[in-house]
Amino acid sequence: MKRNIYIENKPLEDARELFASRLEACGYFEPKAEEIPTLEAYNRISASAIYARRSAPHYVASAMDGIAVAAVETESANDYSPLTLSSDQYLEVDTGDYVPPQFDSVIMIEEVNLTEEGARIIKPAVPWQHIRSIGEDLVARDMIVPSGIKLGPYEIASLLTAAIERVAVVKKPLVYIIPTGSELVERGSLDMAPGEIVESNSYMLAGLAREWGAQVIRHDIVPDEPSLLTGALQEAVAQADLIVMCSGSSAGREDYTAELIEQRGELLVHGLAMRPGKPAILGIIDGKPVIGVPGYPISAQLVFNLFARPLLYRKQGIPAPEPETVEALMARKVASHMGVDEFIYVNLARIQDKYIAFPLNRGAGITTSLVKADGVALLPRGQEGCQAGEISPVKLMRSRGIIDKTIVAIGSHDLSIDFLTDLLARNHSLRLISTNVGSMGGLMAMMRGEVHFAGIHLLDPATGEYNLSYLERFMCGKSWLLVNLAIREQGLIVKKGNPLGIKSLADLTRKEVRYINRQKGSGTRILFDYLLGREKIASPAINGYNREEYTHLAVAAAVKNNACDTGLGIYASARAMDLDFIPIAEEMYDVCLLPEVLGDKRLEYLLETIRGSELGTLLQKAGGYNLKLTGQIRAANSL
Amino acid sequence: MKRNIYIENKPLEDARELFASRLEACGYFEPKAEEIPTLEAYNRISASAIYARRSAPHYVASAMDGIAVAAVETESANDYSPLTLSSDQYLEVDTGDYVPPQFDSVIMIEEVNLTEEGARIIKPAVPWQHIRSIGEDLVARDMIVPSGIKLGPYEIASLLTAAIERVAVVKKPLVYIIPTGSELVERGSLDMAPGEIVESNSYMLAGLAREWGAQVIRHDIVPDEPSLLTGALQEAVAQADLIVMCSGSSAGREDYTAELIEQRGELLVHGLAMRPGKPAILGIIDGKPVIGVPGYPISAQLVFNLFARPLLYRKQGIPAPEPETVEALMARKVASHMGVDEFIYVNLARIQDKYIAFPLNRGAGITTSLVKADGVALLPRGQEGCQAGEISPVKLMRSRGIIDKTIVAIGSHDLSIDFLTDLLARNHSLRLISTNVGSMGGLMAMMRGEVHFAGIHLLDPATGEYNLSYLERFMCGKSWLLVNLAIREQGLIVKKGNPLGIKSLADLTRKEVRYINRQKGSGTRILFDYLLGREKIASPAINGYNREEYTHLAVAAAVKNNACDTGLGIYASARAMDLDFIPIAEEMYDVCLLPEVLGDKRLEYLLETIRGSELGTLLQKAGGYNLKLTGQIRAANSL
Repeated sequence: MKRNIYIENKPLEDARELFASRLEACGYFEPKAEEIPTLEAYNRISASAIYARRSAPHYVASAMDGIAVAAVETESANDYSPLTLSSDQYLEVDTGDYVPPQFDSVIMIEEVNLTEEGARIIKPAVPWQHIRSIGEDLVARDMIVPSGIKLGPYEIASLLTAAIERVAVVKKPLVYIIPTGSELVERGSLDMAPGEIVESNSYMLAGLAREWGAQVIRHDIVPDEPSLLTGALQEAVAQADLIVMCSGSSAGREDYTAELIEQRGELLVHGLAMRPGKPAILGIIDGKPVIGVPGYPISAQLVFNLFARPLLYRKQGIPAPEPETVEALMARKVASHMGVDEFIYVNLARIQDKYIAFPLNRGAGITTSLVKADGVALLPRGQEGCQAGEISPVKLMRSRGIIDKTIVAIGSHDLSIDFLTDLLARNHSLRLISTNVGSMGGLMAMMRGEVHFAGIHLLDPATGEYNLSYLERFMCGKSWLLVNLAIREQGLIVKKGNPLGIKSLADLTRKEVRYINRQKGSGTRILFDYLLGREKIASPAINGYNREEYTHLAVAAAVKNNACDTGLGIYASARAMDLDFIPIAEEMYDVCLLPEVLGDKRLEYLLETIRGSELGTLLQKAGGYNLKLTGQIRAANSL
Repeated sequence: MKRNIYIENKPLEDARELFASRLEACGYFEPKAEEIPTLEAYNRISASAIYARRSAPHYVASAMDGIAVAAVETESANDYSPLTLSSDQYLEVDTGDYVPPQFDSVIMIEEVNLTEEGARIIKPAVPWQHIRSIGEDLVARDMIVPSGIKLGPYEIASLLTAAIERVAVVKKPLVYIIPTGSELVERGSLDMAPGEIVESNSYMLAGLAREWGAQVIRHDIVPDEPSLLTGALQEAVAQADLIVMCSGSSAGREDYTAELIEQRGELLVHGLAMRPGKPAILGIIDGKPVIGVPGYPISAQLVFNLFARPLLYRKQGIPAPEPETVEALMARKVASHMGVDEFIYVNLARIQDKYIAFPLNRGAGITTSLVKADGVALLPRGQEGCQAGEISPVKLMRSRGIIDKTIVAIGSHDLSIDFLTDLLARNHSLRLISTNVGSMGGLMAMMRGEVHFAGIHLLDPATGEYNLSYLERFMCGKSWLLVNLAIREQGLIVKKGNPLGIKSLADLTRKEVRYINRQKGSGTRILFDYLLGREKIASPAINGYNREEYTHLAVAAAVKNNACDTGLGIYASARAMDLDFIPIAEEMYDVCLLPEVLGDKRLEYLLETIRGSELGTLLQKAGGYNLKLTGQIRAANSL
């Protein structure tokens, strides 16, 4: 059977150099200019040096409120014999007013006594005092800006003052994006067929290209049909400065692009020694660069960043802005594939004066990882991954200001964490980023001092108490604070109308009931195992005991989508998905804070938000929460 | 006589607090939202948390290219007895394809042998291997972004994937700008009447407001006519979220605004204890803030920044980005007015790992100072100015990347410096900033190590030689390099057709000839005095000997505008202004470089550009230059 394999494993630098040098040979980077009205030139790039057409001021002007005089006529004035100038010897002027040629200086109004006889002065004027000469601010032919300058509000205002009505600016490169793939649909809906994928990469790449100064045409989705692809490509090459073929997410799709480029132009690169982004394609048709970006959003973003960005900036004759870099400590080990440049997208937070990088899930196929990403670290070829605690440079994708205002939560998932995130953003411009690794995972991260707080609900099977015994066991030697967020109901999430008639845990052993579990170390899993033990149910008797999800919502979604029949989770998740709920137990959902790590101000805002009425209202609306202890300090350990 | 005086001297913080608290009391900062299509929401701010409407994937999907199987049917496969699955036992799938419910796992294509009989495998599948479960990337009801997030390319793509077609975003505040002043004209032209001023402040402020997220309406210029002003204000208050009255540059004008606000609303502040920007006005009409900004561009920019910016950001529910601050060494002493907050606009450059701040001319009335400014330093009330060499925090107005790529030149002015500026920008993305303080001023700055190079043409009257003896005298103990830029002609710039028949320096003593001189310490002034001495002409015999300009172009402009009849300057200036030129002398225009301060790369680019053909072409086109020594090292001192 014929299967496509990647024909190359080209090192990144080689690919970039090859692409640039071939385009250079085509004269691709020759700047193109266009003349446009100055008032439309905001944020455009000057194509050449711009020189003033007129001077400013273009007339001799007063620099003060006062009277214009001829200095020679004021020579005799002094304290003892004031001089009175007659009405033809002076002219009242305001700042900026024209000073006619018979006058050569201005006396400040504070030093003049205007009487019926005329202007009385007690001091002679020095020639040219308080006079702004022609061109004092700007002389005709002065250079206002050189080439390659982004024209902002100040430049525009200066150009207008200098009587420049039209300016030569760099033409915006035209990027033509062609989304390809028979499985792609234009709009997401609630009743999409299985296998259909919403085309969104093109909009992401279009947004990036515009940020880099380009204009964009997006072609409609082209199905995997060679003649249609050829037509779209032809159309693109005719007008664009850069053509981007966006694959669907299926592998093998890229090869259509490679083949097409080979037929009509020159295929330079097919396959890169990097991850993600390996199946990238680079080519040239009729002197125009063509980039084939892979279907996974992170791959697409990375390839577009590495190849389209430098090209578009250079085409505009300006340097690509260097993203800021910080040295960050890797929160966990990252494996890398030998022989490839590995790009690791991370979240960043400043924790006790160090930046900590939290690698994002690398498997994620959609753009939420990019929404979350704060930066990207490169593990170069030949380096064998990165150990936890190792320092790595991270290129920022977000401003450092936002990163410095970040609170990191890790641990168990609860809807209240989403509500907290929104309230902290809205009321205090703080960013809360949370990772769901279960309660035990949260405690481990707390022990390493890598997070600000953890949401936990850890049942002690020996006592039936929540959280306290775990903290005492694991968090000795640390200052911590345990604050109740809510008491919540856990129960079996079942389909609307409960078609299988599930009433208790015992029903889970029925052959036809497909269960979905939570991951090991999660509080819900501990609770489930505790309840099974109490009721003496053996786990292998449950169909799906080994199938794991990571959040309450994911469990509810699995029930909703008929991937299973039931799972243990909180009421709010069942309600959010319009499912039924069989209550099984009440539990304490607490947050464990590290006051020293969090710092005074952020700690204060966090506690204030937990105790505030806004959160209470949201939780009551979501349902399944008992707020009688919310915001109370359940225990504390201060060193 | 009735003159307006500023009624207040309100401290900045008090004014800001008063303005904010009064607006708060009006409910001004209550957020306003609007719903718009997601595809139009680029760079808009989320008005509330946005939750996914659908899961992604919304179906069980393959995570690999391979075959979908039911794990239970593969249990018997092993190396010794491969298992062949019949066509109804498996389904060929690509990454992202739908996996129907009869299958629960995927075997990678590399581990399958597809034959005519079926799919041969040698290893059983583990249930759920290589399967992406529903919602693996995004679960319906997951929060995609909280409130107050700028929606960029990644957010937009995620929203589309989550089937969110419309989003609630913060309404852009509407800023209504009213330029006022009878002397203002809409467009600059070459034949403007004396006293007319091009209105450009409104476009500057509009650009800033847009950068801060607002939308802008600009009213036509309103002459100083109370009824017209009242009408414009009424129109503005009816629709805008912020009204800005832009004064013309005449003093006293602001008081119309103050009076109008007082009549129709509440006048909060009239006059601030700060410079520039003292005559600012703050008021509220019908719950809408009104800001009266002074006419000088720098004052207008400063007042708008201090008052409109925080207000507009807060109105959008997001924090105003904090500009980056660097600690910089003041290149020269700055006086400040006691009792006022003094804002000093500066150029910045990195010189040997220190940031040096060069205060910009504070008198300048037009926006070129803002075009030049890299940052602003605040000398707080009660502090008595700032000494040269003092360290002061400077808030950046430009990215640090550009500042770090800056070469600072100081010294004598020549058109070749403008050409160098453009060529360095165009070819090497280096920014050259130059200040014209004359040759001696340049040498002084070099001695202090505050600049990278100086353009000089200093005649030694004893030898007739240029520059060398000065360098030997003043620059001992430093490494320097003296490179010729050009030999240039100095001469008398006269009106077209030379109506006064000026032929030599002797003509300057004629009563009717009005001369304009260059400032003391400039090479041209030294040359002029040398020539006068040689021809035994006494300086008092020259009408205008004491009237000074700072550049060749300014001298030419003064002749062109009939502010005088002649001045000594270079041919290129005369030609640029279409004037006649009487050659008087040839002189060496050299640049003195500090190689250690400039560093290898910048030094290399600078020398390359001086020696390059592009500069030669431009100088030849300008005329009056002899290039036989251009780029040659005339002398060097290495330690």
